[in-house]
Amino acid sequence: MNTLGHLFKLTTFGESHGTAIGGVIDGCPSQMKLDFDFIEQELLRRKTAQSSISSQRKEPDRVEWLSGLLDGVTLGTPIAFMVRNEDCKPEDYEALKDVYRPSHADYTYEQKYGIRDWRGGGRASARTTLPIVVAGAIAKQILKAKGIQVCAEVTSMGDAEQARREGDTVGGVVECRIVGVPAGLGEPMFGKFSAELAHAVFSLPAVKGFEIGDGFALAKMKGSEANDTFINKVGKITTLTNHSGGIQGGITNGNDVVFRVAFKPIPSISQAQQTVNRAGEPCEIAIEGRHDVCALPRAVVLVEALAAMVTLDMKLLAQ
Amino acid sequence: MNTLGHLFKLTTFGESHGTAIGGVIDGCPSQMKLDFDFIEQELLRRKTAQSSISSQRKEPDRVEWLSGLLDGVTLGTPIAFMVRNEDCKPEDYEALKDVYRPSHADYTYEQKYGIRDWRGGGRASARTTLPIVVAGAIAKQILKAKGIQVCAEVTSMGDAEQARREGDTVGGVVECRIVGVPAGLGEPMFGKFSAELAHAVFSLPAVKGFEIGDGFALAKMKGSEANDTFINKVGKITTLTNHSGGIQGGITNGNDVVFRVAFKPIPSISQAQQTVNRAGEPCEIAIEGRHDVCALPRAVVLVEALAAMVTLDMKLLAQ
Amino acid sequence: MNTLGHLFKLTTFGESHGTAIGGVIDGCPSQMKLDFDFIEQELLRRKTAQSSISSQRKEPDRVEWLSGLLDGVTLGTPIAFMVRNEDCKPEDYEALKDVYRPSHADYTYEQKYGIRDWRGGGRASARTTLPIVVAGAIAKQILKAKGIQVCAEVTSMGDAEQARREGDTVGGVVECRIVGVPAGLGEPMFGKFSAELAHAVFSLPAVKGFEIGDGFALAKMKGSEANDTFINKVGKITTLTNHSGGIQGGITNGNDVVFRVAFKPIPSISQAQQTVNRAGEPCEIAIEGRHDVCALPRAVVLVEALAAMVTLDMKLLAQ
Amino acid sequence: MNTLGHLFKLTTFGESHGTAIGGVIDGCPSQMKLDFDFIEQELLRRKTAQSSISSQRKEPDRVEWLSGLLDGVTLGTPIAFMVRNEDCKPEDYEALKDVYRPSHADYTYEQKYGIRDWRGGGRASARTTLPIVVAGAIAKQILKAKGIQVCAEVTSMGDAEQARREGDTVGGVVECRIVGVPAGLGEPMFGKFSAELAHAVFSLPAVKGFEIGDGFALAKMKGSEANDTFINKVGKITTLTNHSGGIQGGITNGNDVVFRVAFKPIPSISQAQQTVNRAGEPCEIAIEGRHDVCALPRAVVLVEALAAMVTLDMKLLAQ
Repeated sequence: MNTLGHLFKLTTFGESHGTAIGGVIDGCPSQMKLDFDFIEQELLRRKTAQSSISSQRKEPDRVEWLSGLLDGVTLGTPIAFMVRNEDCKPEDYEALKDVYRPSHADYTYEQKYGIRDWRGGGRASARTTLPIVVAGAIAKQILKAKGIQVCAEVTSMGDAEQARREGDTVGGVVECRIVGVPAGLGEPMFGKFSAELAHAVFSLPAVKGFEIGDGFALAKMKGSEANDTFINKVGKITTLTNHSGGIQGGITNGNDVVFRVAFKPIPSISQAQQTVNRAGEPCEIAIEGRHDVCALPRAVVLVEALAAMVTLDMKLLAQ
Repeated sequence: MNTLGHLFKLTTFGESHGTAIGGVIDGCPSQMKLDFDFIEQELLRRKTAQSSISSQRKEPDRVEWLSGLLDGVTLGTPIAFMVRNEDCKPEDYEALKDVYRPSHADYTYEQKYGIRDWRGGGRASARTTLPIVVAGAIAKQILKAKGIQVCAEVTSMGDAEQARREGDTVGGVVECRIVGVPAGLGEPMFGKFSAELAHAVFSLPAVKGFEIGDGFALAKMKGSEANDTFINKVGKITTLTNHSGGIQGGITNGNDVVFRVAFKPIPSISQAQQTVNRAGEPCEIAIEGRHDVCALPRAVVLVEALAAMVTLDMKLLAQ
Repeated sequence: MNTLGHLFKLTTFGESHGTAIGGVIDGCPSQMKLDFDFIEQELLRRKTAQSSISSQRKEPDRVEWLSGLLDGVTLGTPIAFMVRNEDCKPEDYEALKDVYRPSHADYTYEQKYGIRDWRGGGRASARTTLPIVVAGAIAKQILKAKGIQVCAEVTSMGDAEQARREGDTVGGVVECRIVGVPAGLGEPMFGKFSAELAHAVFSLPAVKGFEIGDGFALAKMKGSEANDTFINKVGKITTLTNHSGGIQGGITNGNDVVFRVAFKPIPSISQAQQTVNRAGEPCEIAIEGRHDVCALPRAVVLVEALAAMVTLDMKLLAQ
Repeated sequence: MNTLGHLFKLTTFGESHGTAIGGVIDGCPSQMKLDFDFIEQELLRRKTAQSSISSQRKEPDRVEWLSGLLDGVTLGTPIAFMVRNEDCKPEDYEALKDVYRPSHADYTYEQKYGIRDWRGGGRASARTTLPIVVAGAIAKQILKAKGIQVCAEVTSMGDAEQARREGDTVGGVVECRIVGVPAGLGEPMFGKFSAELAHAVFSLPAVKGFEIGDGFALAKMKGSEANDTFINKVGKITTLTNHSGGIQGGITNGNDVVFRVAFKPIPSISQAQQTVNRAGEPCEIAIEGRHDVCALPRAVVLVEALAAMVTLDMKLLAQ
C-alpha cells in the first residue's frame, strides 16, 4: 500500500527524521534520456514555493540515483533514488513523544501499528511526499514528448500573513489542468480516470476534498445546463463547454481534464491547544519548531506530479 | 480494472442489454450464513427508491447464485451471482446507434474501444451498478456482526418534479456515515481510508465530487478552527469535534467516518439537444425512453454499499 | 486469488456440484470476432480426450455467454461465461462427507475454511478447470493472429488399462511448445516468463513438477554442454541448440518455448484405502463413482490454455 | 514486476555495477525487534558459501538501512535498505559490450528494452538477488517466532573442482524443507502454495526445474503408491507418507513442505565459445573475470529466503 500505479509504479519509503526518504519507480519506459535539471527545478518548486509563509527547514533535497540508469538513460529496470535527511533535529520533537497533536496522525498511527516514529511526524510527515515530485517530474517528461502538459495553481487560500501573526494556519484549493490528453484514456467501472485521480490526490496529507469539472456545483444544475454539447471543430469532435472536466463515463473525451483539490489548514499551530497524552490524561501543547503556515504553495507541484503519474499510467494501460 | 478491493474483492460484468449483469466476490470470509432477504431488500431500495421521480423500467432483479455457497453458507470460495436482463428493448436505442449523446459515455467508449454496445448505454449504464448492491449487502452483514454500520441519505437535491415537467433532470448530494468503525483502519501513503473511499465512490456513474469531514469548507478555515481536540471520554480517547470526518493521516480515529458525494444531473434529458454523429455531422436529439429524473434516490444504497465494501476490505487488511 | 494474469485476466468461480462453473475474462482486446466453434472444439478435447481411460460423467459443457460481446465481437469489457452443472449426483458423495480421502484436498480445505463442499470435490474438483479452457481458446485465437501457436502432448504416462483393471490410477508428463513467440517477452526479476508459466501450470490439480528446456537434466550438465550458441540464421539471430527452452534471464529469445509438467496419479482409486474421518477415527474407504484413470489426456488442452494465456499476457505487457 | 508477494512484499532494485543494490519491504509486521546479526550471517552464507569453488569478488555487502525502523524495531512502514556496489570494475566487461554471451540474458534484455547495462550482467546479474537474502532473513525471524523453520541443502551437484580446471561450470539441485508450517495455508485455484513457491523460485537466475514432494517421480507411480494415508498421531491428523510434499489441493496439510530446485550450470565459462555480436556477426569469446564455477552453494540461502517469504505471505493472507 506504499505503491501507486498499475504499469508506471512508484513505491515510496522513508520517515521525516529517518536515514533517508526515497522511492522506486518500476515500469518507466526504457531509453529515455532524463532531464535531471528539470527534476531539480521541480524539487525546488516544492522547497522554495513557500517563501515567507513557509517553514525554514533547510533541506538540500539532493537526489541520489541508485539504479535503473546508464549514462542518464533509463534501462527499463527499477529507478531507485533517495534523499538523505541531513538537517534532523529529533530533540525538537521529544516533548511531543507521548502527546497526541490534534488533527495529526499521531494517535491513528499508534492505533494502527502500536508504535510510531514521533520524530517530526515520521511516515506521516509532508516530507514523505518528496519522492512523488521526482516520479512526477519523470512522468511529465514522458508526457511532454507526447504533447501532454500538466499545470496546477492555487485558486483560493486563507490569509497566510495574518494567520502567521496569530500563530495559526490556513487551507485552500488547488486547481489542476491536464492539456493535450487524448480521448479514450481511463478504464470503465473501477479504474475510471476520475477515480484514479481522486485516489492519487487523496494520498497527499491534508487533502479533504476533490472535484472534477464543475464538481459540487454540478449537483445544483439541471441536465440541460450541465450537459456538454458535442461539436465538430475543424474536423475534430470536441465539446462546446467542459462542465464534465474532460471525463465522461470515466474516460477522457479529449478536452482538458480539470480538477480541484481542497486542503485543510496544517494542524501544527503555535497557539496553545488542549489534547490528551498516551495515558489518556488531558494536557496542553503549543507546537513550536519549523512549520508551514499553509501547505498550498508546496502542494501545487505535488498535485501536478500525481496528475502526471496517473495520466502516464492510464496512457500505458491504453496501449 | 473491473475489480474493486484488495482482500474483499468484487469483479463485475455485464452490459445494460446483454444477457446478464453480475459479479464475482472473492475473499468473502467462510462460514457466514447469508441473509438473502436483506440482500433482496437492498436491491429493492435501489429499484423502488425512485418512485415517481424515476424511470419505469421493470427490472425483476432476481439474483441467481452460481457458486461459493453450501446451504446458504459461504464456503470461502468465489461467490458468483447474476441477474438476467429480461426487459430489454434494444429497439428503443436504435436511433441513438450512431449519435453521441451529450455528457454520456458514447463518444469516449468508442474512442477507447473502437466499438460500443449502444443498447441502453451498454457497460456505462447505471444498471451495471447492481452487483455493487449485492456485494455491499454482504459486506454490511459481516460488518454488522462487528458492530459497524453504514448509513447514507440525500442531503441536497434539485427540484425533481419541476424538472420532470420540463423534460430535464437534476443532481444532488449524498452524505454517508460509517458508525462504529474502530481506530487504526486504512493504510498510510497510497492506501489511505479516504483515498480508498474516494476511489470507490468515483466508480459510480455521474459522481463529480467527493469530500470527507468538512471537506471543501475546511479550505476556508484556520487551523485553530479546523483541528479536532482529543478528549478522554469515559476512559476512551476520542475527539470533541469531527471536522476530520473520522480520518487523520489517512487512518480512522474511531469517530464516525463522514463523507459527501456530488452527483451531476443525469445527462439523458428529453429536451432537444444539439450534438454530432459518428461521422462528425451536427444533429439534434431528444432522448426518449425510460430514464430517471434524478440518480440520487438510487444512489443512496450504492454509496452505502461501496462504503461497506471499503470498510470491510480495510478491516481485513488490518488483521 | 481466483484470478490469473496481469492484463489479460481470468477470474474463475464454481464448485463441481454447485449451480454453475464459469469465469470472467477482463482485459481481452476489443473488436475480436470470436470463433465459438473453436472454443467448443477445445472443450471437447478436454471432455472426450479421455475416451476409454476416462470417467463417464456426461457433461454437456454448453457455454452460456453472459457479457462482453456484441454480435460475437468483443467489446473490451469483461467477458463472463458459465456452464451449468446439470448431471450432478451429490448422493454419490454423501458417504464421503465426513471422511478425508487420501491425497485429496478434503482435509486441507477444511483446515483452511472450516467448511468444504463435499459434493464431488467442490472447488478442488478438476471440473473447475473448465473456464481455463475457454479463456485459453480465446487467447489462442488472438495469438494465432500474431503468428504464435501453442501445442502440447503427453510424452509419458503409466499403463492406464492395466491400472483400470486393478482399480488404480496413473500419472504422466505433458510437454508443451510455444512456437513463434517473439524475443523480448517476460519481465526480469519477479515476472520472468518461466516463473509466470510455472505459476500458471501449478494452478492445475495434480501438478507436482515443472521444468523448462532441458530442466532437471541441465543440473547434471556442464556449462559447455548446456550453453546455447548464438548463430546468425539467414539474417536472424537465434540459437543452435535450445537447452534453455527459449528463455534466458527470464525473457524469451525467439526460439520455441518448451516446458514439461509432471502430473501425479489421480488420488481417487477404487482400491480400499485406510484413512481417518473428521473425528480423527481410522476408517476404510473405496472411492466409487465416475473417475478418470489418468488426468493426462484431459490435461493437454489445459496446459496449452495456460501457456496461451501467459504468452498473451506477457505480450500485452510488452506493448 | 520487480515486486514479490501479496501482503509481505519485496520490491528490489539495482544493477550489478550501478550505484547500489537494494530493496523495499512493504507489509512487514510492526513492533518486531530485528536481529541484525542474523541478517549479516545470512548475507555471509551467500557470500562465503562458495569458498574455493566460487568467484573472488570482494563484496563487503554492508547493508545500509534507510527507513521503517526506530531503534531497530519495525514501524510497520516500508523498510528500505541498500548495499553499495563498491568493488566495480566495469572495464572487465568492456570487451563484452557488443557481444551476446551464450545462455546469458544479454540478447534477451536488448530485445526487450533496446538497451542493456552491459557491466557485469546489469540487472540480470546474480548479485541482484542480494535483497532477497535480506527480506528472507527478516521473514525467517518472524516465522521462527511462530515455530516455522526453513532449511535447504545441495542434494546433487556436478564435480566443481574438475570443472574449474577445465574452465567449465556445473549445475545441481537444491532441496528445501519447511518445518512446522500449519495446515490450511495457500489459496486454491491461482494462489496455491505450490504455485507461489514455484513462481518465487523461478525468479532466481539459472533455475530450470521445480518439483514438490516426489515431483517428477510421481508421474511414474500408481495412485495406490502415491497416495498419502491419513493417520491419527497422538490426537493429531497427519499423513503416514509425504509423497505430496505437504501440499494437497494447493493447501498445506501440516506435514513438512518439501521441494527441489534444478539449477543449470552458470553460463560464464572461460573456455572459448562461438557466438554473435550485436551486428549479427559470428565471433569467439572466452569469458574472463571473477565468476563462480557453480551457483549452488550461494543458492541455498536464496532458496530458503524465498521459501520463508512465501510462507510468511501465505500466513498473513490466512489471518
